[in-house]
Amino acid sequence: MSAPFFWPPISDSRRDIGRLLISCPDRPGIVAAVSRFLFEQGANIIDSDQHSTDPTGGMFFMRVEFQLSDLAQRGPALEEAFSRIAASFEMAWRLAYAGRIKRLAIFVSKAEHALFELLWHRRAGDLRAEIAMVISNHSELAPTVAAWGVPFHHIPVEKNRKQEAEAKQIALMAGKIDLVVLARYMQIISADFIKHYPHRIINIHHSFLPAFVGADPYARAYERGVKLIGATAHYVTEELDAGPIIEQDVQRVDHRQGVEDLRRIGRSVERTVLARAVSWHVEDRVLVHGNKTIIFS
Amino acid sequence: MSAPFFWPPISDSRRDIGRLLISCPDRPGIVAAVSRFLFEQGANIIDSDQHSTDPTGGMFFMRVEFQLSDLAQRGPALEEAFSRIAASFEMAWRLAYAGRIKRLAIFVSKAEHALFELLWHRRAGDLRAEIAMVISNHSELAPTVAAWGVPFHHIPVEKNRKQEAEAKQIALMAGKIDLVVLARYMQIISADFIKHYPHRIINIHHSFLPAFVGADPYARAYERGVKLIGATAHYVTEELDAGPIIEQDVQRVDHRQGVEDLRRIGRSVERTVLARAVSWHVEDRVLVHGNKTIIFS
Amino acid sequence: MSAPFFWPPISDSRRDIGRLLISCPDRPGIVAAVSRFLFEQGANIIDSDQHSTDPTGGMFFMRVEFQLSDLAQRGPALEEAFSRIAASFEMAWRLAYAGRIKRLAIFVSKAEHALFELLWHRRAGDLRAEIAMVISNHSELAPTVAAWGVPFHHIPVEKNRKQEAEAKQIALMAGKIDLVVLARYMQIISADFIKHYPHRIINIHHSFLPAFVGADPYARAYERGVKLIGATAHYVTEELDAGPIIEQDVQRVDHRQGVEDLRRIGRSVERTVLARAVSWHVEDRVLVHGNKTIIFS
Amino acid sequence: MSAPFFWPPISDSRRDIGRLLISCPDRPGIVAAVSRFLFEQGANIIDSDQHSTDPTGGMFFMRVEFQLSDLAQRGPALEEAFSRIAASFEMAWRLAYAGRIKRLAIFVSKAEHALFELLWHRRAGDLRAEIAMVISNHSELAPTVAAWGVPFHHIPVEKNRKQEAEAKQIALMAGKIDLVVLARYMQIISADFIKHYPHRIINIHHSFLPAFVGADPYARAYERGVKLIGATAHYVTEELDAGPIIEQDVQRVDHRQGVEDLRRIGRSVERTVLARAVSWHVEDRVLVHGNKTIIFS
Repeated sequence: MSAPFFWPPISDSRRDIGRLLISCPDRPGIVAAVSRFLFEQGANIIDSDQHSTDPTGGMFFMRVEFQLSDLAQRGPALEEAFSRIAASFEMAWRLAYAGRIKRLAIFVSKAEHALFELLWHRRAGDLRAEIAMVISNHSELAPTVAAWGVPFHHIPVEKNRKQEAEAKQIALMAGKIDLVVLARYMQIISADFIKHYPHRIINIHHSFLPAFVGADPYARAYERGVKLIGATAHYVTEELDAGPIIEQDVQRVDHRQGVEDLRRIGRSVERTVLARAVSWHVEDRVLVHGNKTIIFS
Repeated sequence: MSAPFFWPPISDSRRDIGRLLISCPDRPGIVAAVSRFLFEQGANIIDSDQHSTDPTGGMFFMRVEFQLSDLAQRGPALEEAFSRIAASFEMAWRLAYAGRIKRLAIFVSKAEHALFELLWHRRAGDLRAEIAMVISNHSELAPTVAAWGVPFHHIPVEKNRKQEAEAKQIALMAGKIDLVVLARYMQIISADFIKHYPHRIINIHHSFLPAFVGADPYARAYERGVKLIGATAHYVTEELDAGPIIEQDVQRVDHRQGVEDLRRIGRSVERTVLARAVSWHVEDRVLVHGNKTIIFS
Repeated sequence: MSAPFFWPPISDSRRDIGRLLISCPDRPGIVAAVSRFLFEQGANIIDSDQHSTDPTGGMFFMRVEFQLSDLAQRGPALEEAFSRIAASFEMAWRLAYAGRIKRLAIFVSKAEHALFELLWHRRAGDLRAEIAMVISNHSELAPTVAAWGVPFHHIPVEKNRKQEAEAKQIALMAGKIDLVVLARYMQIISADFIKHYPHRIINIHHSFLPAFVGADPYARAYERGVKLIGATAHYVTEELDAGPIIEQDVQRVDHRQGVEDLRRIGRSVERTVLARAVSWHVEDRVLVHGNKTIIFS
Repeated sequence: MSAPFFWPPISDSRRDIGRLLISCPDRPGIVAAVSRFLFEQGANIIDSDQHSTDPTGGMFFMRVEFQLSDLAQRGPALEEAFSRIAASFEMAWRLAYAGRIKRLAIFVSKAEHALFELLWHRRAGDLRAEIAMVISNHSELAPTVAAWGVPFHHIPVEKNRKQEAEAKQIALMAGKIDLVVLARYMQIISADFIKHYPHRIINIHHSFLPAFVGADPYARAYERGVKLIGATAHYVTEELDAGPIIEQDVQRVDHRQGVEDLRRIGRSVERTVLARAVSWHVEDRVLVHGNKTIIFS
């Protein structure tokens, strides 16, 4: 049976769109050199954002979105040519092709809210990525994922055999996945796994002011009578929940909300925050520098 | 010279307004008993809010605002009569008279932003309280406070002689102050001082997701690239910054804001959050239960 | 084939929950009479909200949520008994039974966003209602609605034969529907249709500051460079788009958004605002007075 | 008597900061030409924002903030040199000198809230402009303005003699004022007056969804039960309240707010929105194109 849901195609007009992402020590002439290069190549700049932490001695970040006919064919030569400019400015850089739709693997456990939000955003055309597979350590979500026409892989994670499970996940994704999204996966990812997807694993977790460390933070937030429930989306690094923050948001609560309500509201914030973070990554709007992000949204 | 600022009078029409604040174990008949009592006394209920953590076995909270002719004269008898109902329901309760304008002592150090916000709200008629005095461990703000026509007391706090300074503060406020507001006072208040004003000292401090413990949290928030800067207003208890939360809010930031900008935005959130918390306290909208608040706003 | 989506049951524990909704001229003793009545009936008040436009000569509104064993059986006698109190206070009132799950008919045209939001909220347990049918003047959404396991009825609306179409709709819903939701239905409903569902038809439409009357408001909002895109949910009355407002919200935009982006953002605000309005109606939180609503949220 | 308020100096470090503002038909090579020019002049780009309505056939907008030693001295030659580039791209452009602090005339009537917000923002260092004078058609605010040490001019506006009053205002401001702020001035400005300050008069007014045309909109908003109260800041053009929108915002209200509360909340939104709009103008962040603005905030 074919899936009942029709996935809207991602526009063909993006085929000739490139995005140049640059980080380097700031000094005069960077913008001039980059924009002159693109002009000489015949590219039309559509959008350009830049940021300097300090014009003297700071770091410089840039994102240029441009249109260039036959970009797919001309890309390799363009990259080759740009690498000389990049070298002279000591740039870390990459060229992203909007026409190469990013492929997502979404990791879930039993909760469906974050996954559903991404499916819905894909469906509504707000998330311009392919949801290529869903991987779960449980089987509960198999039927609903199937109903959306997305492959579902059940890979149980047994105690003391996590390495084995991760090996299966990595094999499954090899060459097929550009971004891993932990949509309430509830498992700690090993340092080894992370090395396969550096700054390409996004996690979502709840956040409070003040933070409540330890078990059942919602119960403790309720006891303390917090007025805001938040969520943080970040890239996964070796240090647990301490990677570069991509997005955060909060929602207001009051004494009328019980612990269950706080959890429900927490889920709602998580959905929104994760969807925004994934969209920004997919559109190549996130630059990572040290342990922080620059978002050209 | 008289102060250049005219303080708008707080409306005379509030003279006959009372506010009954009640906490007790929940059980059937509380609202019936309270509303019948007020009806029999000839009081008009203007506003009534209640909250039950659980109708069976939980706690019940109530705030009733009513109008009663000659409340000031009839208050003592009313309280006497109500105490019998209160006893039968094991209520903790108090009757607040809207006509008795609360008197505030605002403690500051050198920063003026939180103080100014309160002066401005008083001026605009949004804060219905008397700013009776400003106490500071520094003298810098003396002239500007004087310009608003508010008494300013400079009580230096020397190392190892904090007790002495607190004794002076307490003497100065004795019988004249209903609420102490720490508007960026930057000094830790002793447990002894707190006993004089139980749940009547409000403090404001910055808050982040995640929390940054230790020195210079704004610098650390900048390094981590947080996307939200927050503030928390709470009642001061013996445990530092861990008293019942009255209000919290956040403001959005991005990579373009430097450390100084984060501090400036932090000040802006602190102003807003503190002003709201003080207003709610002044209008008897805050009930404290354990380490949390119920706000009937 | 059975629907791939599992609809979570709406909690059995609501069976004994009643909600009393009252409007009447304000005067002393109303709360006392209502709360005493409930107490004498053995009901536990869970939540109570009230509002008075003016304690002398104004209107009084009240919503009391209570728990009473065997409410379904005892309801008729309770209503009979309460009607005497109601008469003495000239109350307009009704008793809503939380256990009687409201049944929704959702009217759509070709756009799916508002419908999907309601399906999703139902699925997530945030909307406690039964989506009993979807009615559309087009057939495009039939397969996706079917995938959710919800009956879909295609009733074309031909020019000059609207009356006929409405007759079919009304016949289809007779005795089965408690609330009609126009989720971007794009058709004007006749006064005759409205009479069948007084204050039980909710519509959603875009809103701007300032308002742009006439065709293609998004294009005009873009030309004017508005900074906010809004939506309004309201009860449908005979005067087009002028019925009592239930909920409104806005989202921020800037010059980078083109007309298509404004439309997309408009859809997003519409989803959120409509879902909130429908939830409040379903939980009996909306009282209508004249052309405005009182929302006890 | 000297003013009791100390005005913090506006940083000297801004002396060498220039801001180039450009509008022109979009075509390839603009960024390259501008950035190369600045590079060759020895300027350091600090911040650069651009926007294209459409890379083929649309309009292009750019704001570049740069640092150049001895800008004040070198400015005229720089402008001369740039005018050749500008001509070749058909640019509308200007060079703004951050070191030339803009001078504001604030027009008020009797309400002080919007004026106070601007004084306070100036005081807190958030508004980097000189409040050079306050002009009012009434004398009520004279003493409070004097207390801030700002010149106050009372110019009554009599019926049928508005032209005379405007002549006085214009004479008073001649050569001294860069921006006129109508901070609840409550008078319609003539087309002739507007010609003296094209796109340099900012007005603030309330906004509602839906709009309420005619007298006493707050009373009508109350009757309709609106859930949002808004404000719009815009440049004044000949068509009343229809000039390019600079900023808008809303605040949430509910049935508990009476007409007076709506007015108070309206004042609060007006303060915030006006302060943001004035700050953006003062920092040369606003480009006007047709009847809309591009804000590089």
